[in-house]
Amino acid sequence: MTSEAITVLGLGNLGRALAETFLRADRAVTVWNRSAAKAEGLAATVAGTAADAVAASGLVVVAMLDHQAAQQVLTGVDVRGKALVNLTSGTPGDARELAGWAAANGAEYLHGAVYAVPQTIGTDASSIIYSGSAVVHEQWQKSLAELGKVTFLGDDAGRASGYDVAILSGMYGLLGGFLHATALARANGIEAGELTPMLLSWLTDLQPALTMFAGEIDGGSYAGGESSLAMNQSGLATLIRAAEAQGVPFAGLDAFKALVDRQVAEGRGEESLARAVESF
Amino acid sequence: MTSEAITVLGLGNLGRALAETFLRADRAVTVWNRSAAKAEGLAATVAGTAADAVAASGLVVVAMLDHQAAQQVLTGVDVRGKALVNLTSGTPGDARELAGWAAANGAEYLHGAVYAVPQTIGTDASSIIYSGSAVVHEQWQKSLAELGKVTFLGDDAGRASGYDVAILSGMYGLLGGFLHATALARANGIEAGELTPMLLSWLTDLQPALTMFAGEIDGGSYAGGESSLAMNQSGLATLIRAAEAQGVPFAGLDAFKALVDRQVAEGRGEESLARAVESF
Ligand SMILES: NC(=O)c1ccc[n+]([C@@H]2O[C@H](COP(=O)([O-])OP(=O)(O)OC[C@H]3O[C@@H](n4cnc5c(N)ncnc54)[C@H](OP(=O)(O)O)[C@@H]3O)[C@@H](O)[C@H]2O)c1
Ligand SMILES: NC(=O)c1ccc[n+]([C@@H]2O[C@H](COP(=O)([O-])OP(=O)(O)OC[C@H]3O[C@@H](n4cnc5c(N)ncnc54)[C@H](OP(=O)(O)O)[C@@H]3O)[C@@H](O)[C@H]2O)c1
Repeated sequence: MTSEAITVLGLGNLGRALAETFLRADRAVTVWNRSAAKAEGLAATVAGTAADAVAASGLVVVAMLDHQAAQQVLTGVDVRGKALVNLTSGTPGDARELAGWAAANGAEYLHGAVYAVPQTIGTDASSIIYSGSAVVHEQWQKSLAELGKVTFLGDDAGRASGYDVAILSGMYGLLGGFLHATALARANGIEAGELTPMLLSWLTDLQPALTMFAGEIDGGSYAGGESSLAMNQSGLATLIRAAEAQGVPFAGLDAFKALVDRQVAEGRGEESLARAVESF
Repeated sequence: MTSEAITVLGLGNLGRALAETFLRADRAVTVWNRSAAKAEGLAATVAGTAADAVAASGLVVVAMLDHQAAQQVLTGVDVRGKALVNLTSGTPGDARELAGWAAANGAEYLHGAVYAVPQTIGTDASSIIYSGSAVVHEQWQKSLAELGKVTFLGDDAGRASGYDVAILSGMYGLLGGFLHATALARANGIEAGELTPMLLSWLTDLQPALTMFAGEIDGGSYAGGESSLAMNQSGLATLIRAAEAQGVPFAGLDAFKALVDRQVAEGRGEESLARAVESF
């Protein structure tokens, strides 16, 4: 084991991209995956067990499907003195639980949330936010930087996941809306490729409005509604009607309209759409 | 009535911004609104009835809450020889219905869908897509250009609304996701103002992935899934669990997960998330 050696546990789409990125940076990389076949074609040392893989390096990067899988793989493994960096998506509570387990077993724990697709790991388009062990963040700064832009959010191991669940919720809203948009377009004889540039351009133009909404939300003051709850309630009703008429209803629209309806029912129709957040 | 005179029917947030923009361009503007008080402070001629307002100008721009309101206001009004531009949101069928009515009553009908907020009408950040009467689009090009970038999509009056329902569905997905994201962040002690720059940066980085998804959707081929249905199913489950644990569940996430679940249940788990569109 050299001090610069790195182990990657999990060779799914993300884990494989992590291993390939470290290999391109000429690191000594050891990998382990439940299904051994996933290691094929990787110029890394393939360990027979997760325990052997962990023993091989000072830095252990974990990329499992979910928290349960990460727990299963780590339980019973000797992690004393290791720097564990877990990039598996989970809740703030999940991250704090593993941080507690690591502390009890003599390891340092840093949790990360990845903003990249596997293809962009290791490029400028990759950004990872971390929280937990400042020691790992400092000692392994160079290795972490090889994966993408590093942002450290302090020593609460759950904080990065707190941002992450919020950011993923925003992302899934966008993705659900995007897929529904392409379904509606298709029903009107418009290809996804025709729609997408116009949609992306409008969503980009909306960004200042979201920043304005954020200010309203933090201030708890929704008076200046140029995009009023009442107008959006009507727009959502029109849209739901159109989607039904075209055979592509989507419960996501109803879910959002329910938030808006509740504020309008409380007499807030003239106020800003951002007030819909108070319905949660 | 001068040939360059413009009438605006409806002085809600959008209509008022339209009237103000035409006034800034030194047009002779006549306005009408159901509640007369909304015309206060506007340096326009205020008509007593919608019929009087229509009679005053060659171009009549309509910005009502919804299709029903636009129909109510126009019914019985003499529109012979007028160029009607309707910017009221509606379905493709709504626009075709009004276009038919206009043709039967001797008017030209152009339907528009506005991508701007009232504050940005008349600026570079405003874009309006039109379809319907090519005559109106040509003859009133200069006036239309005063409101924002003009895109003409051909003579089917419903086509602009076909794009519009799709684009609005994408927008409401983003907005619902954004508001839920700020609610989750708040539950974790993170302000909307802290979250928003990180969220917007990630959503911007996702745009190439959406363009790739559009290609998969048009090609009907979802094999290259680096963002697999199975991984996203697991991510959505984690997120739904986190949102429930923090007291801010959102049915919009369940709606999207249902689309993903259906594809995974059909044995497509390793394929691209974009295949979820086939669940509609
Ligand atoms: N892909 C992305 O774009 C992306 C971006 C940001 C964050 N993430 C997060 O990164 C994590 C991994 O994503 P991915 O795309 O790599 O997922 P993936 O391609 O589905 O890979 C899942 C990995 O988890 C392993 N696994 C699942 N259950 C296991 C268990 N019980 N015991 C041992 N190993 C188990 C799989 O092993 P087998 O090969 O044996 O099945 C595989 O290595 C997820 O939490 C995801 O949310 C992914
Ligand atoms: N605001 C935006 O950012 C935006 C952007 C793009 C598209 N749009 C679309 O533009 C249209 C107008 O939006 P807005 O923001 O201006 O809405 P708004 O502020 O709510 O104004 C609605 C207008 O409709 C009138 N109205 C409603 N029902 C009526 C009826 N039965 N008879 C006569 N008049 C009636 C209202 O008159 P009163 O004053 O008498 O109530 C008011 O002038 C909507 O279709 C919207 O989807 C708006």
